[in-house]
Amino acid sequence: MVKRKLHRKRASAGAPPGTLVADPLSSPTAMDYITYDETGCTENASAEVGGLAKVVGKRAVTWINVVGLADIALIEALGKQFDLHRLALEDVINVHQRPKLEEYGAHLFIVTRMAADPASRETEQVSMFLCKGLLITFQERPGDVFEPVRERLRRGGGQIRKLGADYLAYALIDAVIDGYFPVLERRGEEVEHLEDLVVKKPRETLLSVIHETKRDLLDLRRAVWPQREMLSALMREEGDFIEDRTKIYLRDCYDHVIQLIDIIETYREICSGLVETYLSSLSNRMNEIMKVLTIMATVFIPLSFIAGLYGMNFDPRVSPWNMPELGWKYGYPYALTLMAAVAGGLMWWFWRRGWIGGSGDHD
Amino acid sequence: MVKRKLHRKRASAGAPPGTLVADPLSSPTAMDYITYDETGCTENASAEVGGLAKVVGKRAVTWINVVGLADIALIEALGKQFDLHRLALEDVINVHQRPKLEEYGAHLFIVTRMAADPASRETEQVSMFLCKGLLITFQERPGDVFEPVRERLRRGGGQIRKLGADYLAYALIDAVIDGYFPVLERRGEEVEHLEDLVVKKPRETLLSVIHETKRDLLDLRRAVWPQREMLSALMREEGDFIEDRTKIYLRDCYDHVIQLIDIIETYREICSGLVETYLSSLSNRMNEIMKVLTIMATVFIPLSFIAGLYGMNFDPRVSPWNMPELGWKYGYPYALTLMAAVAGGLMWWFWRRGWIGGSGDHD
Amino acid sequence: MVKRKLHRKRASAGAPPGTLVADPLSSPTAMDYITYDETGCTENASAEVGGLAKVVGKRAVTWINVVGLADIALIEALGKQFDLHRLALEDVINVHQRPKLEEYGAHLFIVTRMAADPASRETEQVSMFLCKGLLITFQERPGDVFEPVRERLRRGGGQIRKLGADYLAYALIDAVIDGYFPVLERRGEEVEHLEDLVVKKPRETLLSVIHETKRDLLDLRRAVWPQREMLSALMREEGDFIEDRTKIYLRDCYDHVIQLIDIIETYREICSGLVETYLSSLSNRMNEIMKVLTIMATVFIPLSFIAGLYGMNFDPRVSPWNMPELGWKYGYPYALTLMAAVAGGLMWWFWRRGWIGGSGDHD
Amino acid sequence: MVKRKLHRKRASAGAPPGTLVADPLSSPTAMDYITYDETGCTENASAEVGGLAKVVGKRAVTWINVVGLADIALIEALGKQFDLHRLALEDVINVHQRPKLEEYGAHLFIVTRMAADPASRETEQVSMFLCKGLLITFQERPGDVFEPVRERLRRGGGQIRKLGADYLAYALIDAVIDGYFPVLERRGEEVEHLEDLVVKKPRETLLSVIHETKRDLLDLRRAVWPQREMLSALMREEGDFIEDRTKIYLRDCYDHVIQLIDIIETYREICSGLVETYLSSLSNRMNEIMKVLTIMATVFIPLSFIAGLYGMNFDPRVSPWNMPELGWKYGYPYALTLMAAVAGGLMWWFWRRGWIGGSGDHD
Amino acid sequence: MVKRKLHRKRASAGAPPGTLVADPLSSPTAMDYITYDETGCTENASAEVGGLAKVVGKRAVTWINVVGLADIALIEALGKQFDLHRLALEDVINVHQRPKLEEYGAHLFIVTRMAADPASRETEQVSMFLCKGLLITFQERPGDVFEPVRERLRRGGGQIRKLGADYLAYALIDAVIDGYFPVLERRGEEVEHLEDLVVKKPRETLLSVIHETKRDLLDLRRAVWPQREMLSALMREEGDFIEDRTKIYLRDCYDHVIQLIDIIETYREICSGLVETYLSSLSNRMNEIMKVLTIMATVFIPLSFIAGLYGMNFDPRVSPWNMPELGWKYGYPYALTLMAAVAGGLMWWFWRRGWIGGSGDHD
Repeated sequence: MVKRKLHRKRASAGAPPGTLVADPLSSPTAMDYITYDETGCTENASAEVGGLAKVVGKRAVTWINVVGLADIALIEALGKQFDLHRLALEDVINVHQRPKLEEYGAHLFIVTRMAADPASRETEQVSMFLCKGLLITFQERPGDVFEPVRERLRRGGGQIRKLGADYLAYALIDAVIDGYFPVLERRGEEVEHLEDLVVKKPRETLLSVIHETKRDLLDLRRAVWPQREMLSALMREEGDFIEDRTKIYLRDCYDHVIQLIDIIETYREICSGLVETYLSSLSNRMNEIMKVLTIMATVFIPLSFIAGLYGMNFDPRVSPWNMPELGWKYGYPYALTLMAAVAGGLMWWFWRRGWIGGSGDHD
Repeated sequence: MVKRKLHRKRASAGAPPGTLVADPLSSPTAMDYITYDETGCTENASAEVGGLAKVVGKRAVTWINVVGLADIALIEALGKQFDLHRLALEDVINVHQRPKLEEYGAHLFIVTRMAADPASRETEQVSMFLCKGLLITFQERPGDVFEPVRERLRRGGGQIRKLGADYLAYALIDAVIDGYFPVLERRGEEVEHLEDLVVKKPRETLLSVIHETKRDLLDLRRAVWPQREMLSALMREEGDFIEDRTKIYLRDCYDHVIQLIDIIETYREICSGLVETYLSSLSNRMNEIMKVLTIMATVFIPLSFIAGLYGMNFDPRVSPWNMPELGWKYGYPYALTLMAAVAGGLMWWFWRRGWIGGSGDHD
Repeated sequence: MVKRKLHRKRASAGAPPGTLVADPLSSPTAMDYITYDETGCTENASAEVGGLAKVVGKRAVTWINVVGLADIALIEALGKQFDLHRLALEDVINVHQRPKLEEYGAHLFIVTRMAADPASRETEQVSMFLCKGLLITFQERPGDVFEPVRERLRRGGGQIRKLGADYLAYALIDAVIDGYFPVLERRGEEVEHLEDLVVKKPRETLLSVIHETKRDLLDLRRAVWPQREMLSALMREEGDFIEDRTKIYLRDCYDHVIQLIDIIETYREICSGLVETYLSSLSNRMNEIMKVLTIMATVFIPLSFIAGLYGMNFDPRVSPWNMPELGWKYGYPYALTLMAAVAGGLMWWFWRRGWIGGSGDHD
Repeated sequence: MVKRKLHRKRASAGAPPGTLVADPLSSPTAMDYITYDETGCTENASAEVGGLAKVVGKRAVTWINVVGLADIALIEALGKQFDLHRLALEDVINVHQRPKLEEYGAHLFIVTRMAADPASRETEQVSMFLCKGLLITFQERPGDVFEPVRERLRRGGGQIRKLGADYLAYALIDAVIDGYFPVLERRGEEVEHLEDLVVKKPRETLLSVIHETKRDLLDLRRAVWPQREMLSALMREEGDFIEDRTKIYLRDCYDHVIQLIDIIETYREICSGLVETYLSSLSNRMNEIMKVLTIMATVFIPLSFIAGLYGMNFDPRVSPWNMPELGWKYGYPYALTLMAAVAGGLMWWFWRRGWIGGSGDHD
Repeated sequence: MVKRKLHRKRASAGAPPGTLVADPLSSPTAMDYITYDETGCTENASAEVGGLAKVVGKRAVTWINVVGLADIALIEALGKQFDLHRLALEDVINVHQRPKLEEYGAHLFIVTRMAADPASRETEQVSMFLCKGLLITFQERPGDVFEPVRERLRRGGGQIRKLGADYLAYALIDAVIDGYFPVLERRGEEVEHLEDLVVKKPRETLLSVIHETKRDLLDLRRAVWPQREMLSALMREEGDFIEDRTKIYLRDCYDHVIQLIDIIETYREICSGLVETYLSSLSNRMNEIMKVLTIMATVFIPLSFIAGLYGMNFDPRVSPWNMPELGWKYGYPYALTLMAAVAGGLMWWFWRRGWIGGSGDHD
């Protein structure tokens, strides 16, 4: 659980910056592109770097999407072809970047984190290079939240085909942000389940589960929070990569990130409350246990004492002062009655204090 | 309790921005308007979009109020007629926005949250489009806090009919802020009730109730806090939508929001104190229980021992060393006296320690 | 305790801003003025609005002081006469404002909060209108901290009569700030008393008292903290209401507010420590109780067992294996010695663990 | 402990600002000066105000040092002679100022706090007036950390005699800051001692001591933290009191203050951890006590039951079903064996759970 | 553990600034240099100050590296030769500086902290003087993380030999930052181990270990956090020491520092959770112990009472009311059955409450 947090930033510490070394666990690389303008849209599901030169620039906007980061050669070739900065490419490969925006002369470099699968607790890095008329995106694994955007590009409805690569970048980021809502829904259900458990069955392991959930929420927060800064930086961007009308859309997207953060914070607050509730339920259990012990012990201890008293062997034959009760006609009934009276009195006292027979004081 | 926090931002994730899809649970839509200037005030309780063109502009200010968000067509028609931005309209429909101010070229878009019903724990989104001489407001449900403003418009007293749409917007926001005070009064009563309970009847479920209340206060804070930023943005607004003399009134309104936040924070602080008090009352209960057990056990254990001692069967006939007390004339009274002395001594010791007979040490 | 925090901002929610409605609990209104310049000082302890026109402007500075806010007509007449803004007047009447500075064209409006009576937990709003050569102040109730300032005006020593209305405003604010020191002294004594109690007599109700005190300190903080901003705004004031040489005095006053806040924060920190100490003293009490129970039970349980052992009825006549001790000559002394040895051994063990006979381990 | 925090700012509340009233507990006043330039250094250990006029200005820099604040007349005369602002002089007398920098036209007024004696928990106010070629310092009591600076002035080594009064002021502030390091060393030893105690002998009073130490650290923080702002203000000072090359030295001094704050924060953090450790050690003690009780009770309760069983008086003569064990030949050994087996079994079970015989589970 | 935090800033408090006094524990000093340009690279593993004049300036960049700070004379000679500011040299010697950037006229002075050995809990100060074409670095001890940079300089691959001293400084800082990742990996393993222990074997000493780890993390945070500011200052540097293209690399480095801080914060959060888990595991243990006691006591107390009851000595011969059970034919079996029934009933009740036989309620 701890281990997953720690990632070396670079394959070999001290290597020169911009060294690209594939993570051996990377998915195999595939590349596709969609190129479009107002009049139409061409798609190629398995593109080659060699063929891109002919494609880019033909239509108004081209979106090249690389899935899987195992093929360093392909990525380097892409970088060469479109003049992508080596440091940015290194960040593409080292997939534990925080969301950020970096301006290089020839392009904007945007890193975001996508929650493609609500069932998974991991987020996936999506890197984007935004140039004029060209958007290159890199994903870690197949499977993404971009299908609706592709659909809109294919259908050509709305304004997506009329606007530039910056609007496409916005649409993708917006899809990424939207993708967190089902994830939070799932976390919300988990938190709700914990709320039930903490009241009904406060097991010893529950606290670890709560802390686990808190940590998941912290991870989510770490993935979402910097997107806010990234979007804010995009909105303030002063080069000509982002058009003003796209900025209005980015502001909308920014609002959604704030909503996400609000929800995450609420869940975290609930989890903190759950810890308190759990600890107090331990105290309550203890009180329950102690009450049972105290009632049993307190009722029977005097009774046993009385029994012990009349089990003493003082010799009644020596003097009439020695345990005359033993010789009474109703000695035994008297002793039993005494015991019942004591027990009854104590029970009544416990009942009045609210320890037995329903809750609350009975004063 | 958790679920209510989570709301999808959009009907279908990935849909193009500006897509208006009605929430199936929306209230049916009704529209009314009030148009007024210094000389008079015309009202129409059930207006049609078609007829608005003739109305707007006749008098100095027109206020169009749409209640219920089910009729997307009407809202779209309004948007078309008055050139409202689609992203803003989307935010009107998706009613879980935080209060905010957004400037579009042709209008200001203001979102605020209204607590129309002090009994409810939900707040309702009120969206406003402020244009020159025109204010369009959208509410989620019938029932609002604007009636006194309408009254003032009808009566024509004061300056409300002399000033522009910006002053009307101020008056509505002010009414919204005012509407939180009765809500807080109610929450205050709840907190007070919890304070009573925590001292007098600290049940096991109380902690959940306290956390529930804390969460309600957090929700309120989430609804109120951004109004501060929204008002502050309105006061700094540099276009010509807000006149300077209105800004003085907005500053007044801003003060009230600060007061609201102060009260909410005080309540949250009290609730945190209540958790501590509750936990300590559990410890106190435990101490009480343990004290009872300890007193009973500690008093009777030596008595039972003495009883057991004289219940031993050593044969006094074998030697005079074997349990001679059994043959004493006052053996039994001696044993009883011994027991009484031990019990009395222990009781006295407990009394001196302040465990019985009133509180405090008796040294 | 909770209720006192909550105050409706306005008599009727939704009323037009600037509506003056007297709180029915207001003190009756009285008005006095002092007008002075370097050469002399005229005082009138019960002034009328009508007569003010002749007074103001005759001498360099006039200070009009209104005590009690019941007479709305008088306050409105004052407002008309000296052109005071209606919103500011509304804030004068609604006496739960935070300290603040508001600039209106014709005057500065200053709100501060005065702790006139160290015994009371309430602070009182003092509102000031600072015009050129004129200072109008409003207090809620008779009784204030301004007497030394009046004395200095009458005596004419120092520079107070040589300087303008801004210096007078400073002198009053300074007196208000000074007035908090005796209040804090009192709170300090309370905190000290709580420190004593928490160690010596940690009753169940103590936690509520600590929280009460924390809340009082929070109230004080709420009254004092915004005075810092108010003074800082006065020092930055760029109109010509405040002269530069007065600003040096305001800086001095600002320093004192910082000192007040430091003291309040220290007290709040101490109170938080007291809660921890209280909770740990509960645990310590529990440990004490448990120790007594454990020692008593642990010592007597084996003794009772031994007594029970020799109370068994196995028949020694059947075989020499059956309880031969009962027939021993020194059987009873042997049993008593065995008991004493067991008890002594256990006592020694408890003593070595530091449970009895002074504190600490005795290893 | 609480009281020491609270100091009236002024002898009589409401007195005019700049009123100098000596604290009756002030040390008697003495004055000395050192005047120096590159060529030499003249010292006078008991100077008179009257003679200063002839001294100041003769050599490049004069340092007048006033020790003890009882002699108001002398301080006022000094103020007159060198045109020191009355408000600043008031702050000199009222020795509970926070460190600060105030610019007056003719001089800078610097307040710092000195920890002259590592054994004391109090800090002492040092006030400085920095004019061109003249530095006047005021200390509360004899005894300071300036001796090394005086030595350097006398010896004339280094650059201290070549540079101006601003460098002298820096040298003194630097000595003041340096003086906190031995104080922190002492606090560090205390904290270390507490760490030992909390693990080895967690007495009931320990928590108060920890809180006391936390409060001492808070006091230190209050004395040190504002020095950071003061130094930062000195470095940004834009008049010509501070030369640029002195500012480099001040930056060095600023770094040391940051180091001090870091250390204080670390100690505070450790103290917070100690509270947790203390509370958990209470719980551990309780667990220990309960374990002893439980083991003793649990082992002996069944044994006592067996003993009680065979102490019953059912009459074996009535039927062979009635307590035939009593008549067995090996009845008593059988009973003893049964008891030993039960006790052994329970001991084994406790051992397996890790309650006895070393720590940890023995599964 | 506490002591290590506290370091005197200067050998003798009050010494003139810029006094260089070697720490007696310093490592002996050695000096080496590498001088390089695009065409080649010359290395000298044991250089003398005297020979440096001939070396520096021959090739584009020279890197002088001093290891061990015992030889003050050498350091002073270096300082003289290259005009290094005395205050900076003092900071080189006093090795407990926080990472920082200081601009002096002739050079930038950079302090960073290196974690050369992941096994150690100490970090080592690395000081750098960045001049035009010259970088002088000082380390405390032999052993560093710079070997890969030296390798790159020797191999001449990449761009390191083409760029200036600023790029070299970047490369070294980058190596320092990279060096923290293995340290964090180790800390992560420790935290993971603690997580295991806290659930499985919550010993009394564990809390101290957790606090120890928290403090180690705090130390790391103190070493890493200011590097962020230092890098940010380097990126904003407006002199001509840092070229623009190097700033892009520094931004990359800055990102890695942010990642480090994120990881440290996560570990600290986990540790805080561990404290809660530990405390709750104490409560759980207590509950377990109490449950055992309660079950044993509660089951056997009534049984013992029954045994005691029939051990009473009421004389059945006196009347048929006196303990007739003793004379019953099946009196003893009846008593045993009664006991078994009571014990069974209680066991069933405990089982239903989930106290025995697996977890959870059995209602």
